[in-house]
Order: sequence, then structure tokens, then C-alpha cells
Amino acid sequence: MQAGKTTIAIIGGTGALGAGLARHLARAGHAIVIGSRSAEKADAAARALAVSGGTVKPRGAGNADAAKAAEIVFVTVPWANHAAILDEIAPHVAGKLVVDTTVPLVPPRVARVQMPPEGSAALTAQKRLGTGVRVVSAFHNVAAHKLQKDEAIDCDVLIFGDDPKDREAVLELAKAAGLRGIHAGPLANSVAGEALTSVLIGINRTYKVDGAGIRITAIATT
Amino acid sequence: MQAGKTTIAIIGGTGALGAGLARHLARAGHAIVIGSRSAEKADAAARALAVSGGTVKPRGAGNADAAKAAEIVFVTVPWANHAAILDEIAPHVAGKLVVDTTVPLVPPRVARVQMPPEGSAALTAQKRLGTGVRVVSAFHNVAAHKLQKDEAIDCDVLIFGDDPKDREAVLELAKAAGLRGIHAGPLANSVAGEALTSVLIGINRTYKVDGAGIRITAIATT
Repeated sequence: MQAGKTTIAIIGGTGALGAGLARHLARAGHAIVIGSRSAEKADAAARALAVSGGTVKPRGAGNADAAKAAEIVFVTVPWANHAAILDEIAPHVAGKLVVDTTVPLVPPRVARVQMPPEGSAALTAQKRLGTGVRVVSAFHNVAAHKLQKDEAIDCDVLIFGDDPKDREAVLELAKAAGLRGIHAGPLANSVAGEALTSVLIGINRTYKVDGAGIRITAIATT
Repeated sequence: MQAGKTTIAIIGGTGALGAGLARHLARAGHAIVIGSRSAEKADAAARALAVSGGTVKPRGAGNADAAKAAEIVFVTVPWANHAAILDEIAPHVAGKLVVDTTVPLVPPRVARVQMPPEGSAALTAQKRLGTGVRVVSAFHNVAAHKLQKDEAIDCDVLIFGDDPKDREAVLELAKAAGLRGIHAGPLANSVAGEALTSVLIGINRTYKVDGAGIRITAIATT
């Protein structure tokens, strides 16, 4: 995959994490399609994004149309909408790389790990989309508000997926967004990244900090 | 809890992690009782430990006797023996602090997260021991061979437990062993630490390193 040549849909791109990722990926030269249930909201988010730079003008669309138009589809939606939105994009992602960033947070106790029966959001997504879709999960632990404001982010991106080539593609996108990606094993391991998000939310509260993250030690990579 | 005044049983103290923890905790002045299914093996491990320093001579015992003698009971056993050993110590740990370090690794695929139906080893332990036992889980991600050899360990210790006071007691023990402990929330969050172990085993293989660990960023504590 060549940087700057990929059309990437950001489903849920009107949210904090989606908008942050879209901003960085657009700036890296990718063609961004913001997806939302409301095409109008998606358009507005795309217009806001355009001012942050990038060679290809971002555009907005409904979720299904955004997924249809893209080669790589990011899913950055709240857990409560996860299943419904996966069903909405499912007819348009066969054979494509779907990058699920969803963490199964169940309010009000978001600092408590509460995994679904499938074991994780990522395994839920794979089950829902079917084996013909290449699901990778990542970006669970990145503080969305920092990504939006171009603050330095002291956090690695754990990347889970059954195919190392697909993980590598996401690792390159993380790098384009200024983040260090780490091969973290099969999709079955995604529970580690997802559960860590609740742990980090709790740490932010306990230690009164803003945006605790994780770093993997002992490996030299950028 | 005053350092140097606690009797600590290390169930499975003949294994790599147990022996490493015992070594550091003995040196910090705690009275160590190594527990093993074989009291003879436990004795031998305690004698080996004695040469590493400490003011109170470590001793060995069968698992049940070790648990009976201690105020704090570490469980450092392979997943395959976890249930049986918990049942063995259960009659002797009512009201005590049990620190479970067990990761539910299922050979041969130890780099793949495979959680039990209860959600984690820690939740399995709490269920098995009953609510009258104060279960905390920790030390999942520390490289046992480094702990045994007094190598510097670039890894935080995530500490899970429902009572902050119990977590704090384990945090002090981690500090005594030269490690930074982190309050990581309720026992339900233990899946994050346990799953990370499989992720780190995979990272060691993928990146050809020895003893990858994790650090929590953005918090200033020692």
C-alpha cells in the first residue's frame, strides 16, 4: 500500500476519535470519506477537516456510501451503535480491510472492563461481518482529544489482526498519524487493548492525569 | 502494613515467578514461606533463597501449611494447576489477602489470549475462594527470569482488586521488589493484565526481544 493513494472511510468520523484520525490521515495524503448516519453531519465534518491540510479534499457521506467508496474502512463508533452500524456497512465491505477501534464501554461504569460474550468488540465485529472481511482492531488506547489537537501522544498503538500484512497496513497508517504501531497478535488478542482502555480511564481518575497511555518496552522500533 | 513485618506465603514458589518474587520480598525483610505440593521441594527452594539475603530465614512447606502460616498468600502457579491449588489453600485463607499472579495460558498457543468463561484467572480465583477472601491480582507482565537475576525490569505492575487498601498493600510489596505498581481498578479489570501477557509473549517473538514489558505513561509516581 502506497501512502497517499488510499481512499479511507471513517465511519463515525464526526466523533472525537474518528475526527482525530481523519485529520491526521488526510494530512498524510489519503482521500478521506467521513461517514455518519447523517450525510449532512458528515459533510460538515469533512468541511471542518479540509482546513487542516491534505492534498485530497475530504468529503462526507452516509455510512453505507462511505464504506462503499473506500478501500479501507475505519469503524470509530460508540459501543451502543456498534452492531447496528456494522450491519449497515456489511454489504459494502466484502474483502476489504475494516479497522475497528471500538471499545465496549458500558456507561456509567466505563472504568470497569465489561466485555461482550464474544470476548471483545473486535471478535463481535468479525462475527457480524463474516470471515470474508479482513478485520483489524487498533487505536483503542489513544486519547482522542489529544489526536484532535495535534498534541504529542505518549502512547503506542496495539494492532490486532489475524493477517500480519493487514496489521502492517494499519501500522503504516498509525505511523502516518504520528503514532508507533505494534504487532500485537491475532484478533483474539484484541481484548487486551480494549480492556486497557477502561484501565486507563480509571488511572486518569485515580492519578488525576489527562490521557494516560501505554508503551511497550524493550523493543526498538518507530 | 509495615514492611518487614509480614509473613508471606508464595504458593508455587518453586517456579520462576514465585522464586523471583520470594527472593525480592525476603531481601526486603519479609518472612517467606515457600509453598509447594512437595514440602521437600519447598524446603530446597527456601534453602536456595536463604543465600540471597534477608533478615528472616525463609522456610518451605506444603501448600496448605504455607497458606495457613501466612498473612498474605501469593499464588504463582501454572494455569493448569490453578483450580486444584486454590481448592487446596481455600480452607486456610479466609479473610486474608490472596495475590493471584496466574495468567490463563493454554499451551501450545500461549501468545493467543484464551480467557476462561469467568472472564479471567482472577475472577475464577475469587469465585473459587469465595467473597470472604480478599483477592488481588498483579505481576502478570513481569519477566520471571529477570526477577530471578536481579536485572533491571522496565515494566510496571498493574494491580487489580476491589479494595483500594488491598491494592495499596500489594503496591508496597511491588515497590519492595523494585517495581512500580499501578492502581488498575477492580478485579474485573484483571483481564487487561492477563491478556497483555499473551500479547507480550507474541511481541517477544515478533520483534525478537527478551522480556518486552509495559509502562503506563503520563503518571508521575515511583
